[in-house]
Amino acid sequence: MRGDSEGFMSSKGKLLHHPERLLGSVQSVIELARALLDSVSHLPILSPHGHTDPAWFATNENFANATELFLAPDHYLYRMLYSQGVSLDALGVGSMSGPSSTDPEASWALFAQNYHLFRGTPSRQWMDHVFYEIFGFEELLSGDNHSNYYQVITKALAQDDFKPRSLFERFGIEVLATTEGAVDQLEAHQSIKDSGWKGRVISAYRPDSVVDPQHEFFSKDLRLMSDLTGESLGDFTSYLRAHQIRRQYFINMGATSTDHGHPSAATLNLSAAEAEALYQRVLKGNVNAIDAEAFRAQMLTEMARMSLDDGLVMQIHPGAYRNHNRSIFDSFGRDKGADVPSATEYVRNLKPLLDEVGNAAGLTIIVFTLDETNYARELAPLAGHYPALKLGPAWWFHDCPEGMWRFREQVTPVAGFYNTVGFNDDTRAFLSIPARHDMARRIDARYLASLVCDHRINLNEGFELMKALTYDLPKSAYKL
Amino acid sequence: MRGDSEGFMSSKGKLLHHPERLLGSVQSVIELARALLDSVSHLPILSPHGHTDPAWFATNENFANATELFLAPDHYLYRMLYSQGVSLDALGVGSMSGPSSTDPEASWALFAQNYHLFRGTPSRQWMDHVFYEIFGFEELLSGDNHSNYYQVITKALAQDDFKPRSLFERFGIEVLATTEGAVDQLEAHQSIKDSGWKGRVISAYRPDSVVDPQHEFFSKDLRLMSDLTGESLGDFTSYLRAHQIRRQYFINMGATSTDHGHPSAATLNLSAAEAEALYQRVLKGNVNAIDAEAFRAQMLTEMARMSLDDGLVMQIHPGAYRNHNRSIFDSFGRDKGADVPSATEYVRNLKPLLDEVGNAAGLTIIVFTLDETNYARELAPLAGHYPALKLGPAWWFHDCPEGMWRFREQVTPVAGFYNTVGFNDDTRAFLSIPARHDMARRIDARYLASLVCDHRINLNEGFELMKALTYDLPKSAYKL
Amino acid sequence: MRGDSEGFMSSKGKLLHHPERLLGSVQSVIELARALLDSVSHLPILSPHGHTDPAWFATNENFANATELFLAPDHYLYRMLYSQGVSLDALGVGSMSGPSSTDPEASWALFAQNYHLFRGTPSRQWMDHVFYEIFGFEELLSGDNHSNYYQVITKALAQDDFKPRSLFERFGIEVLATTEGAVDQLEAHQSIKDSGWKGRVISAYRPDSVVDPQHEFFSKDLRLMSDLTGESLGDFTSYLRAHQIRRQYFINMGATSTDHGHPSAATLNLSAAEAEALYQRVLKGNVNAIDAEAFRAQMLTEMARMSLDDGLVMQIHPGAYRNHNRSIFDSFGRDKGADVPSATEYVRNLKPLLDEVGNAAGLTIIVFTLDETNYARELAPLAGHYPALKLGPAWWFHDCPEGMWRFREQVTPVAGFYNTVGFNDDTRAFLSIPARHDMARRIDARYLASLVCDHRINLNEGFELMKALTYDLPKSAYKL
Repeated sequence: MRGDSEGFMSSKGKLLHHPERLLGSVQSVIELARALLDSVSHLPILSPHGHTDPAWFATNENFANATELFLAPDHYLYRMLYSQGVSLDALGVGSMSGPSSTDPEASWALFAQNYHLFRGTPSRQWMDHVFYEIFGFEELLSGDNHSNYYQVITKALAQDDFKPRSLFERFGIEVLATTEGAVDQLEAHQSIKDSGWKGRVISAYRPDSVVDPQHEFFSKDLRLMSDLTGESLGDFTSYLRAHQIRRQYFINMGATSTDHGHPSAATLNLSAAEAEALYQRVLKGNVNAIDAEAFRAQMLTEMARMSLDDGLVMQIHPGAYRNHNRSIFDSFGRDKGADVPSATEYVRNLKPLLDEVGNAAGLTIIVFTLDETNYARELAPLAGHYPALKLGPAWWFHDCPEGMWRFREQVTPVAGFYNTVGFNDDTRAFLSIPARHDMARRIDARYLASLVCDHRINLNEGFELMKALTYDLPKSAYKL
Repeated sequence: MRGDSEGFMSSKGKLLHHPERLLGSVQSVIELARALLDSVSHLPILSPHGHTDPAWFATNENFANATELFLAPDHYLYRMLYSQGVSLDALGVGSMSGPSSTDPEASWALFAQNYHLFRGTPSRQWMDHVFYEIFGFEELLSGDNHSNYYQVITKALAQDDFKPRSLFERFGIEVLATTEGAVDQLEAHQSIKDSGWKGRVISAYRPDSVVDPQHEFFSKDLRLMSDLTGESLGDFTSYLRAHQIRRQYFINMGATSTDHGHPSAATLNLSAAEAEALYQRVLKGNVNAIDAEAFRAQMLTEMARMSLDDGLVMQIHPGAYRNHNRSIFDSFGRDKGADVPSATEYVRNLKPLLDEVGNAAGLTIIVFTLDETNYARELAPLAGHYPALKLGPAWWFHDCPEGMWRFREQVTPVAGFYNTVGFNDDTRAFLSIPARHDMARRIDARYLASLVCDHRINLNEGFELMKALTYDLPKSAYKL
Repeated sequence: MRGDSEGFMSSKGKLLHHPERLLGSVQSVIELARALLDSVSHLPILSPHGHTDPAWFATNENFANATELFLAPDHYLYRMLYSQGVSLDALGVGSMSGPSSTDPEASWALFAQNYHLFRGTPSRQWMDHVFYEIFGFEELLSGDNHSNYYQVITKALAQDDFKPRSLFERFGIEVLATTEGAVDQLEAHQSIKDSGWKGRVISAYRPDSVVDPQHEFFSKDLRLMSDLTGESLGDFTSYLRAHQIRRQYFINMGATSTDHGHPSAATLNLSAAEAEALYQRVLKGNVNAIDAEAFRAQMLTEMARMSLDDGLVMQIHPGAYRNHNRSIFDSFGRDKGADVPSATEYVRNLKPLLDEVGNAAGLTIIVFTLDETNYARELAPLAGHYPALKLGPAWWFHDCPEGMWRFREQVTPVAGFYNTVGFNDDTRAFLSIPARHDMARRIDARYLASLVCDHRINLNEGFELMKALTYDLPKSAYKL
């Protein structure tokens, strides 16, 4: 059996970090993919969209332990464990009533004992990459070695070269974008600037809490926005001016993009009078679902118009049904792995916005989806026509080898490569950033290698595209 | 040409039953997949969901002939023939006015002459498997050899070792679940028990006819249910008690699960007063479509609550548009190959049920879909979070090599393997059970082998998963 | 590196036209696919659906230059260039105010400089095929060689053997169907007939402008239809008679099919009185959206009934959102690359039509989709049951190697091969016809080879299917 000669039989208990991982099983494709991969190995990481905490780089304090670093903040990990009956509290996830009382090492043991649940998932790949590359493990995490794992990681984290800035440099990150709300004062970003450290950590303007009338902090954050901008917000014009002021604040701190997480991709382009009337109803509170949706829809078009003026790249992330699990939301709050995708429509929904700004070649709107049925049906045809529209990479639940492959296969024939924008890691898990970019590069290399083997592009075109997908496209699309 | 040396050129007219069938064309994957397959070849078949007739095993009478055994009851076969202009009557399918008058051997000839229509379909695989393994044929069925085929099969069927119980044993079936309505008295199951035969044939509680106010037997079956349980069914509480009594009856006869075939996945969780009022409207008859849907939706939640109490595993099979062809329904009745899938929504529809019982780790709800767009978008994210939710395998039109592959590729990255429950053959065609499980094992082996070759899991993890998918997961999920 | 030995490294700047292109990277599949391809290389092209201009073959005038031939009429090409900020005018695309004022050679240069945008798209494959096979180019089109390309092509086009009829013959086209509106008098087709030339160019009856009350020419074309048929069109009966007369006119000119491009797949089967009342509302003008949809829906059923009588094969092309880009529509008009697919429903929508004629084995209705989610969910199950229903090939945005593959993989297990109808090139780009059929044959060969390698069909069945998909199925389905 080839398996034997390849060493598959003797891999029991080994952590897998093979140089040909994720490149498939066809030798000619694997070889070309390796050449393509090698050609970009010297390129830095561009991370234009994500959710790491800028305070890490501002304070540069050591991370505490394996559980707090990896497990407690990563909903990819604990949602899977929860689905198999493990409680969030036992995993160290804090609730509304305070931090988890579980001993972090006990949480880690629970994770390790259930590590088999992640077989076939990208989390497994990311974790093994981190364990191998950053901590030097060669044995697969399991119920047998969890204690050693915990000790080695925790000890390493206390060292200087595991501080956030050291890791940032070791990872070869050229730019890292975080995401902050409209009323965030970006103190951490200011500290980083003031510190003289060379690492480039920028923000992105995410105004959901002052754009979505159904957001729990809407009223509170409107008041804050008024305080911060000196605008009364009494009418829609003042409200829009406040956004312009805050956007400029973010721009001054290095931001190149905005980000909008909406339940749907609905956009509207109301007359000034209609928009004003809608805003007044929204201001009164207790807005109904139709007005809330209309206001969010109108604001996407307003944000696009502002982007035309101030040059911020606009990102739209629609289609998540947030906080689906009522009891988890009541006990643990937001962002606890209980968001799920739902069917999303783009063709009719984006039309008002596109009619207004879709033909502006100077504008960049990057659209994402949680509904893959739109890759070939709606998104690639739209992005393959409208100058302002680009497609963000496979997102969230689709950020996995299979999902990335489907993205390329379904998008490329219609929109090509140049209407896409490279990879986003979109992560809160700082240490996984190189692992996530590595996965994306591997799948892109494999896809390009398969096109070369299929005699559809020349190998030199493959090299050019490999560099474009890794570096050139995110750099230009996000104006980095 | 490799094809030549492999014997592809000389296969004309041969029935194909190659040891490497369905394992793809990449040698390294094929070899690992064969090793994985071999590792489970000794494991028995678990068939936790299907539609065979328990009377076969109760009476143990010989099957009559090839047409009655294979063709007339298998809508997979005659729907394809019908689509190409062959009449159902000519195929031996009985109509509302009685059994077909066509000579069974003439029907068989028609099937054989049109056997090429099944190229590329799973039916072709299943039939060839049965023809080869059970009847020893080596020539492909065709218009030239139909008569020999018919005679050989019919003669074999008259023998003792082709009686239902002998075949059950020869197939290595550990458990076979059938499906019966709520008012079925399970006489056949009782006979099997009384007979002393060791074969384990259990029922599943399928209450559609007393849960769906639009079912043609709703009123009749409610009266039967009242007679069987001594409950008046005059109010919702009595109606629910009647279900509890019937569920207990099924449990006593060995059932471990319920099954629910609904047009949609809608669930509701009404207050007691609302539910009572709805039930009263339903009882009156002539219920409108909205009330009918609401009642079915409420009953899914009620059934889930009962499962929490009595431990029955709950299966939900939504999304079939039944009896789409009016003239076939009028002439031939239900279940004549004229059911078609339609788009199905889960995220909003299941929320009321999941809010009520989704976090109960002791409960198992197995959800199926006829709408594959939900694998990655809704179902895997839901099953990868809710403790009570598991995903049933690729179902019905998707129960084919390509469909099974899509299921694994789209579900695994998000929900892993351990939120799935192994294979269901879901068949009325008893003889095809080993063929169907063989296909599922082969696709799982190929999928796992591809993960090993891609350096994502170790081979020993592959062996563990192969056993889990084949045996451990259905055993535990269905409480067998 | 195998890549090297295969010559991948030395291909820089080369136009790719490898004999194994599009056959994948698995050697056993490639070899069988080549054998399958070879077996149909002698078969002529059947082009039963497309949008070439019959006047080309009537007048047989030379094409003018590369830009007018390739670029200006091909929305696949200029939509991609437009998406990257190139103006339509600069590409030679005429607007509402007249032809483009750009020098054709300058437009060509712009196209050449941006040729990299088409990497990974089918346009790249088609163009390279044409450049190599028809004009003998061996260097890849680029900003460096655009002038030579332009000169060589333009010079060649002036020659006799590049006249439309010569190319038609060189391409080995057995039948070419064009598409004309209901009030077209088919003068070009008449000229071709009268000319004595042997090439078979037939029309297809596309009555959208007299069936869709929202069509901009609806009233005008109704008057023309009245003039042409002598029918008053004052009532629905007269209107239907006018259709019958026009259909007969098309039949007399060789047409074998009708074609219907509707926003949705909605059908209705109204009573005579309801249909008459609806028609009267439609006749009055200013019809609302509901009545317009109802009228289109009713007309699909009427057209199907007429097909039962006069034998025309019926094609339904639903699901395009036309003229999505308002400013492009205002400036440049229809068909400028701004149509996008949208989600399409078939199961409920087609039911009224199928209840009326779906069981008629003598009728052929070919359904297409721009929404691939329906392949396995709705269309294959419907076509695998209804005798009248067949599935058209992967259409428009899905007419690419990946899209064709998805079509076969998702359709075949449920509907088999014999409920499909071979390939449609659906093109306005006459020179690309052989390239498009070549691509389809290659993907079919690869798909069949993979079934053979997977031991699912015999190689001789593969040869039979290869011929069926290439020739027999379109020939019989379209009654050619």
